[in-house]
Amino acid sequence: MSRESVIQRPGRGGQREARRAARSQRAAKLPYIRRRLPTVELLSDEAVEVIEHNAETILEEIGIEFRRDPESLRLWRAAGADVRGERVRIPRGLCRRLIATAPREFTLHARNPGRSVRFGGDATVFSPVGGPPFVSDLDGGRRYGTLADLHRFIRLSHVAPAIHFLGGCMVEPMDVPEGKRHLDVQYAFFRHSDLGCEGTPETPGHAADAVRMAGILFGDDFVDGHCVLLGNINSNSPLTFDGRMLGALREFAEHNQGVIVVPAVLAGAMGPVTPAGCMAELLAECLAGLALTQLVRPGAPAILGSFVGAISMRTGAPTFGTAEATQMIFATAQLARRLGVPVRSGGSLCSSKCADAQAAYESAHTLLPTLLAGVNLVTHSAGWLEGGLVASYEKFVLDVDQLAMMQVLAQGMDVSERGQALDAIREVGPGGHFLGCAHTQANFEAAFHQSSVADYSSYEQWSQEGRLTAEQRANAVWKRMLEEYVDPGLDPARDEALLEFMAKRRAELPDALEED
Amino acid sequence: MSRESVIQRPGRGGQREARRAARSQRAAKLPYIRRRLPTVELLSDEAVEVIEHNAETILEEIGIEFRRDPESLRLWRAAGADVRGERVRIPRGLCRRLIATAPREFTLHARNPGRSVRFGGDATVFSPVGGPPFVSDLDGGRRYGTLADLHRFIRLSHVAPAIHFLGGCMVEPMDVPEGKRHLDVQYAFFRHSDLGCEGTPETPGHAADAVRMAGILFGDDFVDGHCVLLGNINSNSPLTFDGRMLGALREFAEHNQGVIVVPAVLAGAMGPVTPAGCMAELLAECLAGLALTQLVRPGAPAILGSFVGAISMRTGAPTFGTAEATQMIFATAQLARRLGVPVRSGGSLCSSKCADAQAAYESAHTLLPTLLAGVNLVTHSAGWLEGGLVASYEKFVLDVDQLAMMQVLAQGMDVSERGQALDAIREVGPGGHFLGCAHTQANFEAAFHQSSVADYSSYEQWSQEGRLTAEQRANAVWKRMLEEYVDPGLDPARDEALLEFMAKRRAELPDALEED
Repeated sequence: MSRESVIQRPGRGGQREARRAARSQRAAKLPYIRRRLPTVELLSDEAVEVIEHNAETILEEIGIEFRRDPESLRLWRAAGADVRGERVRIPRGLCRRLIATAPREFTLHARNPGRSVRFGGDATVFSPVGGPPFVSDLDGGRRYGTLADLHRFIRLSHVAPAIHFLGGCMVEPMDVPEGKRHLDVQYAFFRHSDLGCEGTPETPGHAADAVRMAGILFGDDFVDGHCVLLGNINSNSPLTFDGRMLGALREFAEHNQGVIVVPAVLAGAMGPVTPAGCMAELLAECLAGLALTQLVRPGAPAILGSFVGAISMRTGAPTFGTAEATQMIFATAQLARRLGVPVRSGGSLCSSKCADAQAAYESAHTLLPTLLAGVNLVTHSAGWLEGGLVASYEKFVLDVDQLAMMQVLAQGMDVSERGQALDAIREVGPGGHFLGCAHTQANFEAAFHQSSVADYSSYEQWSQEGRLTAEQRANAVWKRMLEEYVDPGLDPARDEALLEFMAKRRAELPDALEED
Repeated sequence: MSRESVIQRPGRGGQREARRAARSQRAAKLPYIRRRLPTVELLSDEAVEVIEHNAETILEEIGIEFRRDPESLRLWRAAGADVRGERVRIPRGLCRRLIATAPREFTLHARNPGRSVRFGGDATVFSPVGGPPFVSDLDGGRRYGTLADLHRFIRLSHVAPAIHFLGGCMVEPMDVPEGKRHLDVQYAFFRHSDLGCEGTPETPGHAADAVRMAGILFGDDFVDGHCVLLGNINSNSPLTFDGRMLGALREFAEHNQGVIVVPAVLAGAMGPVTPAGCMAELLAECLAGLALTQLVRPGAPAILGSFVGAISMRTGAPTFGTAEATQMIFATAQLARRLGVPVRSGGSLCSSKCADAQAAYESAHTLLPTLLAGVNLVTHSAGWLEGGLVASYEKFVLDVDQLAMMQVLAQGMDVSERGQALDAIREVGPGGHFLGCAHTQANFEAAFHQSSVADYSSYEQWSQEGRLTAEQRANAVWKRMLEEYVDPGLDPARDEALLEFMAKRRAELPDALEED
């Protein structure tokens, strides 16, 4: 039995002291991350250049379909692209020249200026899961999401220390008609948290309503001069954009709001079975989409995004957290930096149906690469389950615990005099123990991330307490977090104006989603 | 609902095809890894230099205790160190000068030459958990380990594709008297697998018996000229080596066998609460231990190791997979490379009592950094549970699945013509699907790591199949792996000679472990 297996525990005094210190710590909301780590470039320059070259070849030879959006085709024609029907072939290098007007970095303004976040450079911003139609928790099981669920996830995100931004809709409120749902979603973001947020992007109309509601909240003049929303625009891989997304893209860009261009590519389904092939396709789509934002309004803020996975060769189902996905996340960040735009990828993706070891392995192998790669906006970083079909309350708790750990990791190693701790080593000397030494006592509270959900007790104690898995312990934590939520409030006049706008729009809009 | 949440599944034909392809794949044993990734250096040069400077200050000012081993003290005195009692203060720079004779890289020879492994440079070698007194599985629960358990873990390691080396004793056979146990352990390594292995290091006598048994297996002349064993030597942090470990270290080095010097440092207990402080202490201990190997026999192979974690400030219990541990793993590898010796760290460490999400998060946040940092010997990479007190059969299955994925990741992105897949993108075109295209068909079997345990089925299918967690599915996998084991055989004459030696030694040795 090696020393590596012998668990050393302090005496009862040390334990009491440790518990007292822990109780006095209230997890405070953290600002977005400024990374103090070197950025990991996993691909060689040669590999990146091959991908870049192939992306331009795809744009030039195969082209991109811009479907059911004549205005996009008009813009491309005017810019010198070869437009035949809805197929747009783009001369080599044109997209890059157009994208040069997009900002390398920009600020997204939250209604609470202290919660504004930065995209680009050394900034990393964590945002929760977006898009699932289902929710699950251990009490109620798996079910369709409701507006009440969305409110709860916004509150949880508002409370979680390392969630910096409300990106995407944590869960679709399926109890609200699809044609009017975006109003409730956008209002919920604005009302129940003072974090920055995305704008509803499903259709041009939804995007327009989001921009108008932002105008009510921030003032129209402010919105035209500042980014207060991000619109998440998915291409329809391979090599296609649909009319809804194109209209929404133009709507956000026209109003100087941020656009994220995000191909969703599962290798073997929407892309080739090889990561280098997927990345060339993905980059081609991003180049085309980002260039379009600049054709609409030069200087409009834009982000290069990727949502990557692979399909199982056994069942054809999506897989996440595999080596291929890890490589593609690193590649995405390198490609975006060379292009000079901020990058979105991430976050805590998994295929598992419950918050078990599979979910955690897959999520960790997505999240840690995302941080090391220097991704600026980490979407889907908490609560994601089952390929994104489910927002899980327990998974949310487990993920935000990991996010807080990532935030510590991103600070790099402290080599100040405090960090070097030479006096502690001198004080303790050979064969001693550090728990009681002056340096430990002085740095007790600040030392280490305190997990909200990990269990470090003995096997005997863990057994006495019911042998709970991490998922089971997380069930109590999200309930506690909801109790901790404090409403940030909203100026009553603006709140009323938002509600008035929504009532008017509800009366105008059909229940069904507008046609493409 | 964004496209990122919409799971695309191929039709029934695609699924059938995928299943047929998967069945024909038998997971083959993989050679050890030659990394084709850039090595991640997370610490700045300035930070590394601070740690190196402080390590020398510790050696010079505070010194290291070499307890109950007069021969070590004699060697240090002769080398010019300041020896008072058992405290050895070592002049700045002396250790580095001594370590210069250690090889930068070396081969550990397995009895099957095709299974020999390399330590140093771009080599990465995965080895399973070592040291636990307990085993657990979902059928039998947690219990003391037996020799039969050890045999099973050796067989599982022999079968698992991405286990390259038998490092450490996967579980202590507690049913064998402690004073004689090493004989059964060493024999089991030699007999039930043809992978390379460590030597029993608990006492000088155990180390000597391991070397003698290796002499029987490989021939004494071969052993003197080639490394066939590694001895894992733990310091007794802070700043202490005990007599047993020192005697074993000298035994291995004298016979030109590899020595791993491994401080086991949990920040806040055996080291300061700050990672930079721990690393200075850890480096000081490694420098002293590695230098001693070269005082014993210049040129003897040696590895710089670290086993790192932190204690919980709430309970004083060990924690793994935290940001501090991640930083220390990266730092260990950087320090070893600058010193010019191979590095051991790793692997799949966790504190959790079961193979749940906590176990997986903690393990992944240890394993991925270990690979990216360029660690050469990744110990404890499969089966580790509960701070190393337990070797878990299910955790072993989950971990070796991750190891195989890491082995894919380590190959880097394929940017050959196959990897670029431009023809596939041309063939499929905008709006198509890649599953049926020629490139996918041609690369079907080689594409992606096929997980042995992840579940990618639909929620409905997963529910029908009993809603099993990854841990529950792993229970069936290790039983199947044991069935797949094929005895590699052993030359009967050597086998008999080994058994004879063991019988003789058993008669000579007391049941209790020899005194320090």
